[in-house]
Amino acid sequence: MDAVLKVGGSLAEEPKLLITLCSKLSLFAKTFKLVVVPGGGKFADVVRDFDECFNLSSSISHRMAILAMDQFGMLLAQITPNSCATYLLSDAKQLSETDVVPILLPSRLMFNENPLKNSWDVTSDSIAVYVASRFKAAKLILVTDVDGIFTEAPDHEDAMLIERLSVGELLKFNKRTSVDIFLARLLSEYPLDCYVVNGKYPSRIKAILEGKQTICTLIPARTK
Amino acid sequence: MDAVLKVGGSLAEEPKLLITLCSKLSLFAKTFKLVVVPGGGKFADVVRDFDECFNLSSSISHRMAILAMDQFGMLLAQITPNSCATYLLSDAKQLSETDVVPILLPSRLMFNENPLKNSWDVTSDSIAVYVASRFKAAKLILVTDVDGIFTEAPDHEDAMLIERLSVGELLKFNKRTSVDIFLARLLSEYPLDCYVVNGKYPSRIKAILEGKQTICTLIPARTK
Repeated sequence: MDAVLKVGGSLAEEPKLLITLCSKLSLFAKTFKLVVVPGGGKFADVVRDFDECFNLSSSISHRMAILAMDQFGMLLAQITPNSCATYLLSDAKQLSETDVVPILLPSRLMFNENPLKNSWDVTSDSIAVYVASRFKAAKLILVTDVDGIFTEAPDHEDAMLIERLSVGELLKFNKRTSVDIFLARLLSEYPLDCYVVNGKYPSRIKAILEGKQTICTLIPARTK
Repeated sequence: MDAVLKVGGSLAEEPKLLITLCSKLSLFAKTFKLVVVPGGGKFADVVRDFDECFNLSSSISHRMAILAMDQFGMLLAQITPNSCATYLLSDAKQLSETDVVPILLPSRLMFNENPLKNSWDVTSDSIAVYVASRFKAAKLILVTDVDGIFTEAPDHEDAMLIERLSVGELLKFNKRTSVDIFLARLLSEYPLDCYVVNGKYPSRIKAILEGKQTICTLIPARTK
């Protein structure tokens, strides 16, 4: 497996850009062995709102948020040419070896194995690490709506893109950046090169797949 | 099975009332054999928004909306004392014979059997008819946030509650009232007494279960 790509739900805010991105992913899949993991986006935001209103248990809101990923995954499957949504790792692996873009709906895997802490610290970023580890993927590409991880919140005037960040440094961030809080801990367990990249510029994703330099944040694999 | 109750997602707008309702359902389950079917509520509204933005296929948006019902069902299971969420009709039936309130998460059933038209005309109301028919339930109670079906939109100044409405009359309505468009057609196929009742007054639900008169709309079974 060349790469697991998590497509962030925030990209759905601009439908045309997301549709363009998905067409490109379909092209990239002709050259690279890819699996797409969906984010949760607005579907997960509703879960978050209900969690606040009803003070849900962390395990229930976790499961509801994973269903939000299934929902966004179904949407991605609809707008990605030559794609196929599947609940099974084995199917996704097989499909990744063809031209088809496999889109993993994570509910069955996560409900059956429940391998991660049930908390809002664990979102689709962390779930994507887990999936990538199961595939022994060389790269994890977190496709989001900003250029990578910044020194400050991306809209802050002093914010600067961090081009390279060790897992140890990310661990010390200890606040939500453009990636979830639990990601660093998981990356220290499952070593793989993790890229955070802006999905509005699909050419950057292509560059990462080709091993070329581009605008993004790289969190390189920490060998245990 | 005494009754299938569909708890409408709109009731989540007032969390305290929904929590009270769910506590009452838990009491009613001690006397009556009940199964709860969740609505979709805000979870389904997000699907509807994405459907508009991305012009999804009806089968995909249908599946995404059914996952919204699973999400709301998980929430209901959390706030209903002595309840249990299940994907299986057989489990729900067994549990209904105990004091436990079974909450049916409809995705597995509906994805496997796909018995209804995939369209926004078919919402959780129609799915609840299908579930009730599978249980051969005597009553289907659609628990919503208004008193029943009205002659006009419930907030219209001339709106009057219709206490009794035949399936034939409902078929002629042919617009969304407080129930979905497809309901009448399904009720003509699966004859059962269908009640539309306001969940803000749980005593009305109790009255229906006890076979007493109350404020609601009854659509009596049409024998084929």
